[in-house]
Amino acid sequence: MSNNHLSNGESEHLIRQPLLSSQRSIINSTSQVAIVGANVCPIESLDYEIFENEFFKQDWRSRGVYQIFQYICMKWFLCLMIGMIVGFIGFCNNLAVENLAGIKFVITSNMMLERRFLLAFVIFFASNLILTLFACIITAFIAPAAAGSGISEVKAYLNGVDAPGIFTVPTLFVKIIGSITAVSSSLVVGKAGPMVHTGACVAALLGQGGSKRFGITWRWLRFFKNDRDRRDLIICGSAAGIAAAFRAPVGGVLFALEEMASWWRTALLWRAFFTTATVAIFLRAMIDVCLSGKCGLFGKGGLIMFNAYSASISYHLRDVPPVFILAVVGGLLGSLFNFMTNKVLRMYNIINEKGTIYKLLLACLISIFTSCLLFGLPFFASCRLCPLDAVEPCPTIGRSGIYKKFQCPPNHYNGLASLIFNTNDDAIKNLFSMNTDNEFEFSSMLIFFFICLFLTIFSCGIVAPAGLFVPIIVTGASYGRMVGILVGTQSNLSHGLYAVLGAASLLGGSMRTTVSLCVIILELTNNLLLLPLIMMVLLVSKSVANVFNCNVYDLIMKAKGLPYLETHAEPYMRQLTVGDVVTGPLQMFNGIEKVRNIVFVLRTTTHNGFPIIDEPPHSETPVLFGIILRDHLITLLKKKAFLPSPMANSYDILRQFSADDFAKKGSIERVKIEDVQLTEEEMGMYIDLHPFTNASPYTVVETMSLAKALILFREVGLRHLLVIPKIPGRSPVVGILTRHDFTPEHILGMHPFLVRSRWKRLRFWQTFLEKILSGL
Amino acid sequence: MSNNHLSNGESEHLIRQPLLSSQRSIINSTSQVAIVGANVCPIESLDYEIFENEFFKQDWRSRGVYQIFQYICMKWFLCLMIGMIVGFIGFCNNLAVENLAGIKFVITSNMMLERRFLLAFVIFFASNLILTLFACIITAFIAPAAAGSGISEVKAYLNGVDAPGIFTVPTLFVKIIGSITAVSSSLVVGKAGPMVHTGACVAALLGQGGSKRFGITWRWLRFFKNDRDRRDLIICGSAAGIAAAFRAPVGGVLFALEEMASWWRTALLWRAFFTTATVAIFLRAMIDVCLSGKCGLFGKGGLIMFNAYSASISYHLRDVPPVFILAVVGGLLGSLFNFMTNKVLRMYNIINEKGTIYKLLLACLISIFTSCLLFGLPFFASCRLCPLDAVEPCPTIGRSGIYKKFQCPPNHYNGLASLIFNTNDDAIKNLFSMNTDNEFEFSSMLIFFFICLFLTIFSCGIVAPAGLFVPIIVTGASYGRMVGILVGTQSNLSHGLYAVLGAASLLGGSMRTTVSLCVIILELTNNLLLLPLIMMVLLVSKSVANVFNCNVYDLIMKAKGLPYLETHAEPYMRQLTVGDVVTGPLQMFNGIEKVRNIVFVLRTTTHNGFPIIDEPPHSETPVLFGIILRDHLITLLKKKAFLPSPMANSYDILRQFSADDFAKKGSIERVKIEDVQLTEEEMGMYIDLHPFTNASPYTVVETMSLAKALILFREVGLRHLLVIPKIPGRSPVVGILTRHDFTPEHILGMHPFLVRSRWKRLRFWQTFLEKILSGL
Repeated sequence: MSNNHLSNGESEHLIRQPLLSSQRSIINSTSQVAIVGANVCPIESLDYEIFENEFFKQDWRSRGVYQIFQYICMKWFLCLMIGMIVGFIGFCNNLAVENLAGIKFVITSNMMLERRFLLAFVIFFASNLILTLFACIITAFIAPAAAGSGISEVKAYLNGVDAPGIFTVPTLFVKIIGSITAVSSSLVVGKAGPMVHTGACVAALLGQGGSKRFGITWRWLRFFKNDRDRRDLIICGSAAGIAAAFRAPVGGVLFALEEMASWWRTALLWRAFFTTATVAIFLRAMIDVCLSGKCGLFGKGGLIMFNAYSASISYHLRDVPPVFILAVVGGLLGSLFNFMTNKVLRMYNIINEKGTIYKLLLACLISIFTSCLLFGLPFFASCRLCPLDAVEPCPTIGRSGIYKKFQCPPNHYNGLASLIFNTNDDAIKNLFSMNTDNEFEFSSMLIFFFICLFLTIFSCGIVAPAGLFVPIIVTGASYGRMVGILVGTQSNLSHGLYAVLGAASLLGGSMRTTVSLCVIILELTNNLLLLPLIMMVLLVSKSVANVFNCNVYDLIMKAKGLPYLETHAEPYMRQLTVGDVVTGPLQMFNGIEKVRNIVFVLRTTTHNGFPIIDEPPHSETPVLFGIILRDHLITLLKKKAFLPSPMANSYDILRQFSADDFAKKGSIERVKIEDVQLTEEEMGMYIDLHPFTNASPYTVVETMSLAKALILFREVGLRHLLVIPKIPGRSPVVGILTRHDFTPEHILGMHPFLVRSRWKRLRFWQTFLEKILSGL
Repeated sequence: MSNNHLSNGESEHLIRQPLLSSQRSIINSTSQVAIVGANVCPIESLDYEIFENEFFKQDWRSRGVYQIFQYICMKWFLCLMIGMIVGFIGFCNNLAVENLAGIKFVITSNMMLERRFLLAFVIFFASNLILTLFACIITAFIAPAAAGSGISEVKAYLNGVDAPGIFTVPTLFVKIIGSITAVSSSLVVGKAGPMVHTGACVAALLGQGGSKRFGITWRWLRFFKNDRDRRDLIICGSAAGIAAAFRAPVGGVLFALEEMASWWRTALLWRAFFTTATVAIFLRAMIDVCLSGKCGLFGKGGLIMFNAYSASISYHLRDVPPVFILAVVGGLLGSLFNFMTNKVLRMYNIINEKGTIYKLLLACLISIFTSCLLFGLPFFASCRLCPLDAVEPCPTIGRSGIYKKFQCPPNHYNGLASLIFNTNDDAIKNLFSMNTDNEFEFSSMLIFFFICLFLTIFSCGIVAPAGLFVPIIVTGASYGRMVGILVGTQSNLSHGLYAVLGAASLLGGSMRTTVSLCVIILELTNNLLLLPLIMMVLLVSKSVANVFNCNVYDLIMKAKGLPYLETHAEPYMRQLTVGDVVTGPLQMFNGIEKVRNIVFVLRTTTHNGFPIIDEPPHSETPVLFGIILRDHLITLLKKKAFLPSPMANSYDILRQFSADDFAKKGSIERVKIEDVQLTEEEMGMYIDLHPFTNASPYTVVETMSLAKALILFREVGLRHLLVIPKIPGRSPVVGILTRHDFTPEHILGMHPFLVRSRWKRLRFWQTFLEKILSGL
């Protein structure tokens, strides 16, 4: 059936090469699990479709103006709450890191001043190991889903893939504490990714009204018990995360828009903007409090804001060639970084699978390695005489500063130690600083660059919250300084500006976002005059890197097996019809169905949506009525809203339910069919499914091309897409398309012919060309 | 049929109030014309759907890697071209305005120095009148579509509504020249809106490969002969327009995203970013050339870039209340401005309808009025002694400066004249400038504010290219300065910063965008430290203004009658099914159809899409094959690809066509059925429509709710949505939904019951509440 939709043009068969033979009823066999954090767990799709059944319509009609008002107010109130909470967490995170790492560095530095190097090393080494182990142990035992940066998981969630455990109270707790300890332990890991996950987590928990398992629930948060509202909140949450991590409110909104969100509306833009504005204002207020010195070691070094301002930046045409070369090499480095990260992550996954003890051993190894490198390498760097015109005290007194003394004699400083023996934030600050063109030697920069690159790649896969954003900035900044030193006096730009451009090029080569990165860098450096150069660097480095691989978050997502649905269709999808990929067997229910049948089907299948058919005698011919969800069926069974005989009596039934019964639960509270206990008598009764069936499901005809069905599926944000037959008279539904049916693995698995067909080859070429130019 | 989709639940009728009676075959009678510029013209929808027919598939298969490579390269090359051309136009625009207005002001000032006031007035008056008249005459006679800002028309185009004449060579020409002369003529009109239209126009013309009517066509630009690619280019073009007008590349991208575009992809974000980066780099290079003094009077005053930087901005909690009040009042003023603009525009439309002479008279009247006000009012302002510590020469020598002498005695200046007797750009610069808290008196600011507000409202509707962006900034800045003077020493913020915040509040109250305005203001003022305050001001003023009306571009769009399709469905749409609104009679064709029938239907209807049905004997039962477009039918008729008998023979026919035959033409080159001349013999022949029919049309079942059909229609970007029956056996298609069927006017016209129903009332309340909180 699926292939003869052109039967009227007989001669067409002459020119049409049949790509496929009819292959119905292939079982959907590829796996539906993914690695989330360090564990393998089952994944589920989310319901973004508006579910229109008689019950919801009744419920909606019964709502007054007051309830609608309440709903809208709550939405804004939640955004305010998310902004304040995420802002507070971001502030606390910084405060804790600055103090934890600060105390460590102050004690070690004091030992060094007394030239007790071994003791200093032991303290440095031990504190790093303890902090790392603590972060890893809480992650591995309490919330494995909190490992890694979390951006990939949140991105997949916003695309419609729910991995259980990513938005729970333990995850949130571990993410915050783990990120603080991991960053404090001198590991080269970032806090921006974990902040995004934290923000999303806060938003998700507020959206689902707290956590039932931990007894923290709020009745007044009951308005957003559906996936659509939760998605909107999580977008605001991730925007708030970036805003809090970098104090970049506009950049946060744009990052959420460009990198995270799969669906976007203008109203959402405004709400995300409101959320990040709250974060920005809140952070400013908190920092005002801290400026009076009440926050321990949290001083100027806290909350990244690298003032790279110099009022008289001027650059001309002759500055463009070195910046262009910097961008090209930065793009190459970025793609190399992605490649290596991907390889290392896959290697770590093999190690992690062997058990918790291996995970912890791996983390210890990396911590030991990091401590040795960070402590040992500055000894090889030469000591330099303090400059006479230094703007800061030299050598540095106290915690942060550009002239670390380390092992040097008085009135000397160690340039490499100023970078290495510091938090990442301070290192970035030192690299970005103006009027310091002579402070760092080329050899120091080279060593620092390779250490950072190496440690970033090997640290990001450990079982602890670990971001990539800040490490890439450090690495890129040292790369940029190197270029600046090489270019020397040929250029008008200071080395600090080269560091900014280097960071931009490596970020562009690795993350591949444009507008959001540009704004984040501008907000970080507070210098708008650099804008044209930064734009150029980002565009060039992204284009170069796109030739080789895709962005780092997508690579991680693929490595974890999260089925992300792209917006565009692959070329071979145009040659397939929906009928070619839809799989069976299909489970359907009658409009008024026996309880026993429902229970049997729910127990024997894992499907989440079931078409409802009205069959004679209830209608003249079998007619598709709609689609019902597994969750709703289980709710019906639990409430035991049964009828003794197969006749419609929905009015009475409707009154037994409230909207809360059908509200979407939090991801780990899901009800299972195994929890429903029914007597033999109840099993023989009937349920009228009509009032609970979505009577307006989206449908496609089986002869529609797969590419166009994908566009519908993706743009409207569906979970189930019903396929109806072209010729009436057979069953009114041919099958159901789900996310899985659109994955290349599934399609190419069903039609291995395509793999070696011209379309596949053409696809390769097209993908290759697109990668170069990133068109379409 | 349409109402008994719930017939299986008999008792449901008890609780379900029937909203409608079955009313099929109501004719689609509301008008499909709009006011574009100053003329009424018919509008058309655009085809954004991927049209999948056998012919295109064949064509696509025949394309090699080289062609795909060419296509992708061309896309990027066109973006580069758009960026360069728009950058160049933007630069020329500024150069011309600075020189034209500059000469005028220099001559007048010289007269004033010689105290020949009357002669000065006559020169000022006459030059303004001539420039205004010139702008109006070319607009009225050459391209009426170039009148106004053009942002509304471009926004409607990007939503899928094509008004002929908005993207033609004459429009482009008139928009550029008219904008230069109108701005130079001291009218309070802006150049940003016209720049956006210019950018979109450049993009559209490049996309359609030039203009056939003017003999400027390029064969190498033939790749984008479809509405989808053109839409993408026009988005890039409008981003480039803002980037060129304000030197705000990131702001331009965001404005295109937030305000202009109805559909958006991440790939597009990158392309728009590339375009605006080109603009930014190009503009910088051109300004570098001009800095050496080769550009006449184009000096520092050119290309707005109001450096509001002051390194030591600090603000605390006590600055927040006055800024908050400023934002609230700014929001009120913004909505008042929108209200007044709307009223005045509607009044002007009545005048304009009376004929060209009335249009020109109106423009003359406004020019005369403006000249008198601008020249007369400064005489009432008091002369002030030049400050001793002035950073600029006082009184100003030459064209632009903050201390205009006007009628004052030596060593005195006239504060009001410094603002009024200047271009808008210079006025903004003066208002935003730092360390000038004592230069302007409150009375001067008050007068200036009212003049600006008044003249902006009355100038924007004249028959010449006239934007709103810059006038609103001037008005807002003077409002902000007033607040600054009132607050006085209670605040840490300087009056210049208050001017920036005032401009933000009025823009927020009138335009209602958030992120893009925020970034544009930051890029204009080059001061990132203001960010939290600007965010707060924008959010507050937008929220306040939303209570009263919608944004100014939407008001203009509504006044012009452009049927913009919103993303969200109205509440009453949930209660209607697709079957309730679909109208007849429906024209269908057989798969193999007689030429006579096709010609007859095309001549007697204005429909643009026709379902193709395979009927017995070509199939067992009548089956929907697909949908064919009017344009394609006319192409088939023109090529006379006829068959003598009703049998399929598409292979031969396919070879007679090339992809160019079916390419979308430019909007004014449309082929008409009246141009097709056929003999009686040809009329009796047949066409096999199968290979030219889109065999994968999107369909909905007639019982689907209208709200969900709208989501499909809007998200996927359709022009035609086929409605299929629920029960098979009748005709395989019930009707076609078009943009028109989703407009509230049409639906409420068909179902007047809804107007007074609860849903309508609830809708009112919901809209009201949403306006306040802008939720959902």
